[in-house]
Amino acid sequence: MPPSPEHANALVILGIDPGSRHTGYGVLAVSGERARVLAVDVIHLDGQMAHPLRLLQLFEQIGAVVERYAPDECALEMPVYGRNPQSMLKLGRAQAAAMLAVLTRQIPTVEYTPKEVKKALTGRGNATKEQVRFMVQALLELPAQSTRLALDASDALAVAVCHWQHRTRLHTTPRYTNWARFIREHPERLV
Amino acid sequence: MPPSPEHANALVILGIDPGSRHTGYGVLAVSGERARVLAVDVIHLDGQMAHPLRLLQLFEQIGAVVERYAPDECALEMPVYGRNPQSMLKLGRAQAAAMLAVLTRQIPTVEYTPKEVKKALTGRGNATKEQVRFMVQALLELPAQSTRLALDASDALAVAVCHWQHRTRLHTTPRYTNWARFIREHPERLV
Repeated sequence: MPPSPEHANALVILGIDPGSRHTGYGVLAVSGERARVLAVDVIHLDGQMAHPLRLLQLFEQIGAVVERYAPDECALEMPVYGRNPQSMLKLGRAQAAAMLAVLTRQIPTVEYTPKEVKKALTGRGNATKEQVRFMVQALLELPAQSTRLALDASDALAVAVCHWQHRTRLHTTPRYTNWARFIREHPERLV
Repeated sequence: MPPSPEHANALVILGIDPGSRHTGYGVLAVSGERARVLAVDVIHLDGQMAHPLRLLQLFEQIGAVVERYAPDECALEMPVYGRNPQSMLKLGRAQAAAMLAVLTRQIPTVEYTPKEVKKALTGRGNATKEQVRFMVQALLELPAQSTRLALDASDALAVAVCHWQHRTRLHTTPRYTNWARFIREHPERLV
């Protein structure tokens, strides 16, 4: 859904987890300590399509998300280490396509490593994707059973949450060192 | 120089050799068996600048070249193999930025491997960059001594020549299997 009047004063954060085949994105409207999910989905690219055209498609589809939700800031999950040079080349291309779709629209963009995202959500840099998804669903009050998010989608929401958390820390004294502790102290936030 | 009336009927080919720090580009106006260099240069990106901003700069500068010379077709040199995953990630990002600057302007784009480019210019897939530059300067009648092209610049012209050659082959019976042979048979083309 597009931003409604109730989000007029909210900060809209777009989180993206780029991949050469599957790119997750999530849009959060945050206001104080509350966050609402405006959109979350995965863009699937046709593996049979020529790679340049796949990049163009990714660039255009992320561009459409930006046009629709008009995010104030964007956070991208950007792995920088890997073992396979060929898959890193393709990943780099997808990262650039997603980044440029945002940067060409003058939206402030921050990169986070997978470790930073995991640490922000679970308190541990080596958490599994399933653990991250659990925390994302709990924190954002998404029904755990009815809408089981694809892992690419929950990773995208996770990087948006990570940015929200880092951002808050920049402007206020942090009260919680990590979300795991926050959840321990606020069990009512768990659905 | 921008396209002049004398190039009105020529096919304008943009060749690009993308790199995370240095990106060469060259613009050829080809007409039959003649080719004229309209532009050749290297875009240098500031290594101190944040990587996303460097990509945006590359995207915008290649975009400006496209706007200025209005190429009909674009050829990119695209290494797909490498040993270092981290440098391949950065290379992939630069490749995508250059590609998207062209693709978003609806210009047909073809990728060539370094081996294909070297083979097209010298007849050998393992030629050195200096050998490729020698052939580029000879074929395009560039003064060898007065303007010693940067290797990134000559590589960009080389991929444009490679595309010109492949393109011609698509439409006519090839008369020369490689440029080295062409030069042997046309020593007057050597400056």
